[in-house]
Amino acid sequence: MNTFIITFSITAPGCKILPTKEGYILAKVTAYDLAKKQKEISVAEFFERNKHILGFGNQTRALITSVKEGVDNGLDACEEANILPDIYVEIKNREDGECKLIIEDNGPGVVKKQIPHIFGRLLYGSRFHAIRQSRGQQGIGISAVVLYGQLTTGKHAKITSKVEEDRPAVVTELAIDTNKNRAEVIARDTVHWAKPTGTRVEVSIIADYKRGKRFVYDYLQSTSIVNPHAQITYKEPDGAKHIFERTSEALPRKPAEIKPHPYGIELGTLIKLAKHTKSRKLSTFLKTEFSSMGDRTTNTAIDKANLEKNLDPKIMTREQFLALHKAFKKVKIMAPSTDCLSPIGETLIKRSLKYETQEISPEFIITSSRPPSVYSGNPFQVEVGLVYGGNLPREGAVRVMRFANRVPLLYQQGGCVTTSAISSIDWRRYGLDQTSGKGIPTGPAIFLTHISSTLIPYTSESKEAIADIPEIENEVKLAFRECARKVQHHIHKKVRRVKTREKFDLITRILPEIAKKSAYMLDKPVPSLDAVITKIMDVVWIEDLIEYVKVSRKPVQTTLIEESSQDHEGGTITKSKIMIVNYKCTPQKFNLYAVIPEDAIVGTAYPKPSKIANNYIKWNIGTIHPANKIDVNFELAGLEKGDFDENDLYIENINPAYVIGADKWEGD
Amino acid sequence: MNTFIITFSITAPGCKILPTKEGYILAKVTAYDLAKKQKEISVAEFFERNKHILGFGNQTRALITSVKEGVDNGLDACEEANILPDIYVEIKNREDGECKLIIEDNGPGVVKKQIPHIFGRLLYGSRFHAIRQSRGQQGIGISAVVLYGQLTTGKHAKITSKVEEDRPAVVTELAIDTNKNRAEVIARDTVHWAKPTGTRVEVSIIADYKRGKRFVYDYLQSTSIVNPHAQITYKEPDGAKHIFERTSEALPRKPAEIKPHPYGIELGTLIKLAKHTKSRKLSTFLKTEFSSMGDRTTNTAIDKANLEKNLDPKIMTREQFLALHKAFKKVKIMAPSTDCLSPIGETLIKRSLKYETQEISPEFIITSSRPPSVYSGNPFQVEVGLVYGGNLPREGAVRVMRFANRVPLLYQQGGCVTTSAISSIDWRRYGLDQTSGKGIPTGPAIFLTHISSTLIPYTSESKEAIADIPEIENEVKLAFRECARKVQHHIHKKVRRVKTREKFDLITRILPEIAKKSAYMLDKPVPSLDAVITKIMDVVWIEDLIEYVKVSRKPVQTTLIEESSQDHEGGTITKSKIMIVNYKCTPQKFNLYAVIPEDAIVGTAYPKPSKIANNYIKWNIGTIHPANKIDVNFELAGLEKGDFDENDLYIENINPAYVIGADKWEGD
Repeated sequence: MNTFIITFSITAPGCKILPTKEGYILAKVTAYDLAKKQKEISVAEFFERNKHILGFGNQTRALITSVKEGVDNGLDACEEANILPDIYVEIKNREDGECKLIIEDNGPGVVKKQIPHIFGRLLYGSRFHAIRQSRGQQGIGISAVVLYGQLTTGKHAKITSKVEEDRPAVVTELAIDTNKNRAEVIARDTVHWAKPTGTRVEVSIIADYKRGKRFVYDYLQSTSIVNPHAQITYKEPDGAKHIFERTSEALPRKPAEIKPHPYGIELGTLIKLAKHTKSRKLSTFLKTEFSSMGDRTTNTAIDKANLEKNLDPKIMTREQFLALHKAFKKVKIMAPSTDCLSPIGETLIKRSLKYETQEISPEFIITSSRPPSVYSGNPFQVEVGLVYGGNLPREGAVRVMRFANRVPLLYQQGGCVTTSAISSIDWRRYGLDQTSGKGIPTGPAIFLTHISSTLIPYTSESKEAIADIPEIENEVKLAFRECARKVQHHIHKKVRRVKTREKFDLITRILPEIAKKSAYMLDKPVPSLDAVITKIMDVVWIEDLIEYVKVSRKPVQTTLIEESSQDHEGGTITKSKIMIVNYKCTPQKFNLYAVIPEDAIVGTAYPKPSKIANNYIKWNIGTIHPANKIDVNFELAGLEKGDFDENDLYIENINPAYVIGADKWEGD
Repeated sequence: MNTFIITFSITAPGCKILPTKEGYILAKVTAYDLAKKQKEISVAEFFERNKHILGFGNQTRALITSVKEGVDNGLDACEEANILPDIYVEIKNREDGECKLIIEDNGPGVVKKQIPHIFGRLLYGSRFHAIRQSRGQQGIGISAVVLYGQLTTGKHAKITSKVEEDRPAVVTELAIDTNKNRAEVIARDTVHWAKPTGTRVEVSIIADYKRGKRFVYDYLQSTSIVNPHAQITYKEPDGAKHIFERTSEALPRKPAEIKPHPYGIELGTLIKLAKHTKSRKLSTFLKTEFSSMGDRTTNTAIDKANLEKNLDPKIMTREQFLALHKAFKKVKIMAPSTDCLSPIGETLIKRSLKYETQEISPEFIITSSRPPSVYSGNPFQVEVGLVYGGNLPREGAVRVMRFANRVPLLYQQGGCVTTSAISSIDWRRYGLDQTSGKGIPTGPAIFLTHISSTLIPYTSESKEAIADIPEIENEVKLAFRECARKVQHHIHKKVRRVKTREKFDLITRILPEIAKKSAYMLDKPVPSLDAVITKIMDVVWIEDLIEYVKVSRKPVQTTLIEESSQDHEGGTITKSKIMIVNYKCTPQKFNLYAVIPEDAIVGTAYPKPSKIANNYIKWNIGTIHPANKIDVNFELAGLEKGDFDENDLYIENINPAYVIGADKWEGD
């Protein structure tokens, strides 16, 4: 009988064996049998088994994911408390593949009671419920590192946290009970810690340091470039220490926490919000729980939905919500405020790309930034950059650098929306190779994308790739198309300028020579050739020059209120000199625009500009008589040497065909 | 004061305002302030916000994901109860983008008490805790569809379940309270339902039927091909009905539930298992909680770890576990039993590929199957297939068809380990185009991969791509390399055969002509040319022919015990006729092998084979005298017309260079 049972349980596990008077019989497995197996799965257990979903699929990746989660957490904590981040990362590795990871920040620390939850429990945190741009959003990251450490080494994590300057730090040693998704505090102690406040996480993990080494360095370096306000110190196992210096004393403008935007919000979310609102009237509900909903927009939406302003949102029917939901789409609602997003900005994008291409002297770096947009009620913004030419490799696929909320994304490029967006553009029109006009092009270029959002739609909890949300894909495409157009424009402008310069050189060299010789032969004074040259040239010639001047950096104290850009004044001053020569036969009078990076601060400018906007300076240039010239100078602070290395000039109120060195101003 | 507060909360949300005697002051945000925001995130809330992680990132995908989760669930339920699946899928779509999805199975049903949990709660189910190959593994799929439906339409899901033939079905209408991750039962009723048992799920979702239409059809078709035991009926919104017929009355061999395998198990999992075991001795613990651990292996492992057999696993230290964990790697442990995996098999892979290339007449279809392997203690097996040539498009990337546990994967190809494995092979050596020897090649080919495992490491909960686990990547690479080698071999064999045939044709056509003419001229009888032809040909010539004969299908009853392949006997009989001619000058005697699909059943075979193995038939061919021939015939059942369309023949005990039409037998 025994044999029978064993054989059977292998070949037909869909059946069960029932004892009866006649012996054992086979019976079909029923819903009742299955019900016995149906049970809850703890989220920690789920991720313990599916650790690859969290980015711990192999030992190289596990190392980078761990460093990344630790550093992201530290940066978020500091920024949340308006502290300039000082991050310390140390890796100690042992022969047997065990790595000890130490990550320390100078953030506000974590209160004792919350330590077990923050570090020893998945899906717990402060950033999930706030609509605000931050690196961590899921309440999974750092506790996942602790979980992975425990799973692979069986060792406990050690968390040191100091929350007040005049009190000792608390050291907590913890494990995770995965069946319950709760931390077990193994030991607790207090120690003296020199830092005013901060958090230190020590976790032992199984990781491949040898293979991961390069990626950790790359990740920290990229992070440092797009987070110039952070100081990152990295100590390698062999004792080598790398310091990625803080290059800006100003915290980036802190993204504001916002309300959901009515565009793209799901019907279910709308119903849920209404269920939990404190407002008793539909109009108040819309005005208080949503962003961009002023009186007028609210009333229009309610009207279009055929609803009453005074309706109690709590007793509204599904049909009424549906009508309101549909009405949102028919009303023009202001885009969400840019305040909630913190883009990297043109300067840092250029700086990143420049860093990647040092000693390669690429032909040009072009950036493009899209206005903020919304998907499923979440604001987001796309910025892209492109380097071309120089000594970049002509063979092989274009390199793509991806960032999300100022975090470099290193893996899963193939599964990222930015890849599919780039792949869908026919790059052959822009001088790159591409098999049948699809896929990542090949050629001497690097592409960079940054997406900032209050909720980055990562394809998984490992936060390595962005999901193919149509709105995002579209914005990335638009940004790259704009970039590509700028490239074409840039090349066109360059070609035109080179041609005119050749003509100009010829005229200004040969004509005076002829004049001199003729005058000598005729024994007459050398005539003035200005008028003649002007007649031949027949253009307004604009040339420019950029210089960098180092000024002593004042020690800057970050105060609470003045978190403005005035701290930028130390460091490098970028001086731009523009020369305008009128080689036309008639006097010329026009407006000149110089486009400047949004994050630059305009210092002295001469002549006095008629307008200094966020991203340009405008001058009303007074009449320039034929063969006369005028100089325009301005200074920019807040940039590093090389950040601004080419003027982008535009003219207005003059036929653009008359001008070399500037294009028609199309409006800002 | 009000204005100040508002302005401030926008520009410096890292600060807070404190009332004092002197008025309001600004204070730094501390850990105490942050602690107020730190809270638990319900898993339903998490996925509601991150619905793209579950495969609901856009409306096209949402449709396919919903159908897929419903159908996978139905198939799993039926197979678990040994019922031949009958799946009904219906989509009704409305102008406004709302789709009503109805998915019905004839499985065992779900007991009333469990319905709210199974369908209205994420991370709940029966398949997570069992190590067994199944489609669903996460306890997320079907409840995610309900969640998405609620989120986008605000409507409740309706579940009908019948668990006993002589009782009515229970209809449950439910919603999900996402804050708690619990179902709310809105209404409950009983109805008459003609089915003996089964489950019917009705969910309204916002989806893009127009774009998704094609994918749903493709998904159901592919599913039907690799699950020939399932009958799938699909009713489109316009009333069109597609029936994907059941073509096999036999359930696939049901994968057995197994214990974890010691290779690749994480230290943490080992410790956890020991903590919860009922065994009091280390040796018993190893033998009862792990697969492939017999007495000898257990003892060797314990010895190598320097531990005692009688040690209580509950009181072992971390160091002792570590020693044991390390010892596992030093001991040769049998691979996990194949019983726990249910590969698709060569025949179904060929059939899938043939279906995709109908009317294209590709040059050949080659498959390759790897032996089972292990990653992190989870057994897995890789099978691949390749179609080449014919009218397949020569431009554009090779098409890749991916399957996991018999489920077609439609999205996230770029993020899948199969893609990176294929990309890392230099396909230029095998006649395909590939930019710098990397990436998905271009050319007239289709690749197919199937991975079966007790735990498919999907990159996310949407189960669309497989994570880059090194062990899996390696197996996929090996499988494709083997495939590629077979391709080369195939081409080589073909070329050789064509050449010899030309020679043969020439000889057998021209020599007799000359002989006839000469005989006529000399008025002598026409001589026998066999000896001459033999001398010139100097080979053993093997030719074969395949015929299909339709036989009337007996109505088959699936019984509980006889879930064997005998049910296959109805349907098509594949007849293979092999002709062997000895064109050598000496008598020949050798062994012949015909490779057959593992899932085919050998019927009559003449002469009598000396061996019928799982995947080949062997004959000891008796002496064939020069210019004599011998016929070898065999029949196969259990295949459809075209499944077996070419003999793969091998010879033994004869110089392979003498033989055309068969290769050297390298052993099985």
